[in-house]
Amino acid sequence: MTRPRFSTLRRGALALGASLLLAGAAWAQEKVIFQVSDADPAKWNLTFNNINNVQKDLGADKVQIEVVAYGPGIGMLKLDSSVANRVADAMGKGVQVVACENTLTAQKLTRADMLSNISYVPAGVVELMRKQQQGWAYIRP
Amino acid sequence: MTRPRFSTLRRGALALGASLLLAGAAWAQEKVIFQVSDADPAKWNLTFNNINNVQKDLGADKVQIEVVAYGPGIGMLKLDSSVANRVADAMGKGVQVVACENTLTAQKLTRADMLSNISYVPAGVVELMRKQQQGWAYIRP
Amino acid sequence: MTRPRFSTLRRGALALGASLLLAGAAWAQEKVIFQVSDADPAKWNLTFNNINNVQKDLGADKVQIEVVAYGPGIGMLKLDSSVANRVADAMGKGVQVVACENTLTAQKLTRADMLSNISYVPAGVVELMRKQQQGWAYIRP
Repeated sequence: MTRPRFSTLRRGALALGASLLLAGAAWAQEKVIFQVSDADPAKWNLTFNNINNVQKDLGADKVQIEVVAYGPGIGMLKLDSSVANRVADAMGKGVQVVACENTLTAQKLTRADMLSNISYVPAGVVELMRKQQQGWAYIRP
Repeated sequence: MTRPRFSTLRRGALALGASLLLAGAAWAQEKVIFQVSDADPAKWNLTFNNINNVQKDLGADKVQIEVVAYGPGIGMLKLDSSVANRVADAMGKGVQVVACENTLTAQKLTRADMLSNISYVPAGVVELMRKQQQGWAYIRP
Repeated sequence: MTRPRFSTLRRGALALGASLLLAGAAWAQEKVIFQVSDADPAKWNLTFNNINNVQKDLGADKVQIEVVAYGPGIGMLKLDSSVANRVADAMGKGVQVVACENTLTAQKLTRADMLSNISYVPAGVVELMRKQQQGWAYIRP
């Protein structure tokens, strides 16, 4: 009589243990999101220096990197950006580069004004919140 | 003989599972704390733009938002603040706005020098630490 | 027959419970990492004001504090730093102060150019990521 219950309980314990391990692994994986909210090309360059160092230190395939530009930082992703080459280079190395659509609307910009191949999120600040809640580290250069 | 032990163990497993679910839910709830530590009205406005976007995107009743002003950022909450209307507007929409008492002391300010209805914490930086440890996202505009 | 399995399972549950408690305790312990990446002595002073307030509020022996200087912030730790006394004072009170070796290389600095007794990490930004993943709060003054 007790054997089936035992194995049910044991299966439950194993499932719980496995979930905890998976959650732990997902948390431990290297993930970092960079906030660019200053209209300062020196900050944009610092961000890409940071990204290069992260990829050099951890291996570009071992770490997920995202850059969110919003507010006064949106200029980093406009067609006339002084760091357009660095944006393209980072994307070529697997970095996710996203612009905030709220900022585009506020500054009367359209996607035609922006660098090609970048991604978009409805609200940059919500993206930064969500990623932190999913265990991403946050860096504000 | 084994039955009572079995159910004790099962109750323990259920209680553990329930605790984990509650902990997960508390973590998943949307909570964000903004740091204002620059004496720069453009940063103050960016902070309130950010807050508007968070409330628009997630629903004002679905997200807890706190703004902590300290150090050079304390001017945002003084009586002569250029963004006094935005502070009042945010508080009216449920945003918690707090000033750092250490900063008041250091700058020889009293509560009579500050906007009414705001809240206070002994140390703004400790508030920012504590909230992060409780699962709040951190945004430094 | 069932008794040995029972106690194995119970030992497993106790071990899991103990691990969760330890993980919780490690997370709850007060730990904070400060990022210094601006070439702005006012920011350096603000950082040390923040640190003083954290130690005053929580007790210097109750909180682990680390300061990472990198990029344009590296000047805070050079021999001619305008806050050399505050760096020494913080280290004397148990604060870990670290410089980014990538930044030293990029700016053609050696350890002989830096304040004595500070520590070094290969990449400041990776240090900031790692500590966040280990449950440290992040403050960017």
